[in-house]
Amino acid sequence: MTENSSPASLSHVREDGSAHMVDVSAKAETTREATAQAVLRTTAEVVGLITAGGLPKGDALAVARVAGIMAAKQTSSLIPLCHPLPLSKITVDFDVRDAAVTISCAVKTTAVTGVEMEALTGASLAALALYDMIKAVDKRAVITDTKVLAKSGGKSGDWTA
Amino acid sequence: MTENSSPASLSHVREDGSAHMVDVSAKAETTREATAQAVLRTTAEVVGLITAGGLPKGDALAVARVAGIMAAKQTSSLIPLCHPLPLSKITVDFDVRDAAVTISCAVKTTAVTGVEMEALTGASLAALALYDMIKAVDKRAVITDTKVLAKSGGKSGDWTA
Amino acid sequence: MTENSSPASLSHVREDGSAHMVDVSAKAETTREATAQAVLRTTAEVVGLITAGGLPKGDALAVARVAGIMAAKQTSSLIPLCHPLPLSKITVDFDVRDAAVTISCAVKTTAVTGVEMEALTGASLAALALYDMIKAVDKRAVITDTKVLAKSGGKSGDWTA
Amino acid sequence: MTENSSPASLSHVREDGSAHMVDVSAKAETTREATAQAVLRTTAEVVGLITAGGLPKGDALAVARVAGIMAAKQTSSLIPLCHPLPLSKITVDFDVRDAAVTISCAVKTTAVTGVEMEALTGASLAALALYDMIKAVDKRAVITDTKVLAKSGGKSGDWTA
Amino acid sequence: MTENSSPASLSHVREDGSAHMVDVSAKAETTREATAQAVLRTTAEVVGLITAGGLPKGDALAVARVAGIMAAKQTSSLIPLCHPLPLSKITVDFDVRDAAVTISCAVKTTAVTGVEMEALTGASLAALALYDMIKAVDKRAVITDTKVLAKSGGKSGDWTA
Amino acid sequence: MTENSSPASLSHVREDGSAHMVDVSAKAETTREATAQAVLRTTAEVVGLITAGGLPKGDALAVARVAGIMAAKQTSSLIPLCHPLPLSKITVDFDVRDAAVTISCAVKTTAVTGVEMEALTGASLAALALYDMIKAVDKRAVITDTKVLAKSGGKSGDWTA
Repeated sequence: MTENSSPASLSHVREDGSAHMVDVSAKAETTREATAQAVLRTTAEVVGLITAGGLPKGDALAVARVAGIMAAKQTSSLIPLCHPLPLSKITVDFDVRDAAVTISCAVKTTAVTGVEMEALTGASLAALALYDMIKAVDKRAVITDTKVLAKSGGKSGDWTA
Repeated sequence: MTENSSPASLSHVREDGSAHMVDVSAKAETTREATAQAVLRTTAEVVGLITAGGLPKGDALAVARVAGIMAAKQTSSLIPLCHPLPLSKITVDFDVRDAAVTISCAVKTTAVTGVEMEALTGASLAALALYDMIKAVDKRAVITDTKVLAKSGGKSGDWTA
Repeated sequence: MTENSSPASLSHVREDGSAHMVDVSAKAETTREATAQAVLRTTAEVVGLITAGGLPKGDALAVARVAGIMAAKQTSSLIPLCHPLPLSKITVDFDVRDAAVTISCAVKTTAVTGVEMEALTGASLAALALYDMIKAVDKRAVITDTKVLAKSGGKSGDWTA
Repeated sequence: MTENSSPASLSHVREDGSAHMVDVSAKAETTREATAQAVLRTTAEVVGLITAGGLPKGDALAVARVAGIMAAKQTSSLIPLCHPLPLSKITVDFDVRDAAVTISCAVKTTAVTGVEMEALTGASLAALALYDMIKAVDKRAVITDTKVLAKSGGKSGDWTA
Repeated sequence: MTENSSPASLSHVREDGSAHMVDVSAKAETTREATAQAVLRTTAEVVGLITAGGLPKGDALAVARVAGIMAAKQTSSLIPLCHPLPLSKITVDFDVRDAAVTISCAVKTTAVTGVEMEALTGASLAALALYDMIKAVDKRAVITDTKVLAKSGGKSGDWTA
Repeated sequence: MTENSSPASLSHVREDGSAHMVDVSAKAETTREATAQAVLRTTAEVVGLITAGGLPKGDALAVARVAGIMAAKQTSSLIPLCHPLPLSKITVDFDVRDAAVTISCAVKTTAVTGVEMEALTGASLAALALYDMIKAVDKRAVITDTKVLAKSGGKSGDWTA
């Protein structure tokens, strides 16, 4: 067990260890937020094309942003054991650096469980969409450092990476 | 422009730089394959729980494998400018190490364009599903090194990272 | 700014003007309804075939009705910045005239934001499905006058076109 | 029957008139294209906000373009009797006028049936997404003149509205 | 009318008998559960392959379980007149017998309407996925006895088959 | 092994027995058809309401037919290891008896693998949609005898149950 887990978190294990969407019906509905990131590492030349809008498939950041927002809403269809949640806010932002673009996705809900997976899915799909836009000019680009940055709301309290 | 691009790859740029799903109707239909990976970095303790089947949400690798396979089939719905392709094979494999799990996804098609995005989407979603299974015991886990490993078929020839 | 907007409605603009799913978490959950329409203009002969059930693809109105109801439920997957809402009622009705069919779609929810987009999406997809049923006999048919007819519930009060 | 139909087009009617996805397996696979449009009628003031990027939800045309492209790929999931087709090109363009925006969507495939429904669905959903972006400032906007503009390929020959 | 219906249940009939998603906005939100089953009848030899993991497509029960859980979450997209519900728990279990596998699916929600359709859809799709895994070795397998086993919560009270 | 399997059918087993979408890229593209059925067993009274159109949710057979056709097109999204196929025909028919409705679904494709799962999924979802329409008047209805009736095309030859 790592330091950031509690014994309580294992209470959902079924006797036969089988996969299931755990029961969250007894949890309190609160406002919850999560922010996650993913980083696309490419070259300075390609970052220049992203910024200047010179890529073959068109305006990369606008497309990636919409991809991330729409994917965050599909999280419970994509991640087998995720609960469907009524998302109340989604943003996808880009921090364009020398040879990398950091994508961050923030998601908010008023629900019985958190939105880390939604934020991670939004950031990941925005990164994949961005890769799709640049792969004609840099197929060796890598998506890295995909992780939860911060989480608030819920029983486990606020948390920042 | 990086060394692994060709001038031809920019022929799809529209005058106004707007996003579009590029015309691939003149390309030859061939058998194409791509393999991609993503790496989930966690702790040795958590890797032990994955292997032993002791996670709260159940059998992590089986769930992540199905998530990856199903996501690869959804690629053209998730990545805005990807073409829908008739996938003829999808595998998702895991290489479980000390404190990390490497997910690889291989995809095959007989079509006019390649399947790198399908392989990347399969690997990424398997990694996200795996994170979802372990986040109760390690919310600080990171997905990293998501990239195309190899590609074959198509005009640009075979290629390995 | 038009007369039917309020300065408040612009409070969601982000500094960089980027697209986002706006934060509705502070809004009150109330019962909300919206009705929208779309009109399919064709010929009297085709309207006769719709009514008599003589179209190549079969029973046009029943198919279009189901298409509209199912599409209304997909609104947040189709419209990038729409919030997912728990729809509590959907109806799709047809007013068959001389050479046109008016489709109206009414949607209800108990939620923090309105259902105009759901009503419009339901009416539009029912109209498109109807066009699909008749295009073998009138490819020049036109869908027109797609608009919100009425809205109730929410801070902005009731409203009729 | 209107002038633009052929008796052959009714050969698919089933004896009981029931809805079905008609058999296209005997048709020849050819390159086919279709272009469709939809027009969003609003005010000059709102068109100014669209152009200037001053709308509450952000960059309207980029979002609507992605919505249209993604929707075109979902056509066979949305229109009950449409065949799934391997789309090889999708573009969505905007012609911004005084108080209206004309959306045109062009789709291409190499398949046994045409892509009018895909072009119409792409244009319609781009128009709906655009309405969603401006509804805070003009809820009375109307989508009109949604129709097929041109079609080529297939047995029925080329055709322009 | 059968004994297990009430006259009240017919109050939703529309004058023209047309299909619609009935209005549930006035119903009370309560915790509701439903369990449903489906039975896959095959041969003892095939059941042996399922248990031993010797099937061509791989680990059948794990795949079928995930298919059932994911399908239950898609119920309102698959069943035209079903309301979207915020599911709070889904389990899929297998009772492996001599020449049959009984699949049971339990679903929970806190909502204004019940989850029988979600439980039935989960059980049915798990059974279909299981058939898909074994069809190479027994194409004559049959899915039978698909039904609701129990339901609790809501105005109509608890009920067991 | 049952009589209706061939040793060849097991050639796809992976060494570790893991689930995968098997490679069909070397198979020949041919016209393939499959027909499957599902039977909804209810009461004579309810069958009367189905026929007379007197059900609370409306016209049951038309809704179930559309549900079946649309579900058949979603098969590869629902069944984890199914290949996406370009379906060229789908029909759903009903044989209404004393106290039961037999649903049959026929599907056709020109592809490298068969469409049994598409036919089964279409029949099953039509049956589930029909149950949804009648559950207010007969919650004890059962879906039974879901099976493949006939299959043609492909290496394994024609086959009838």
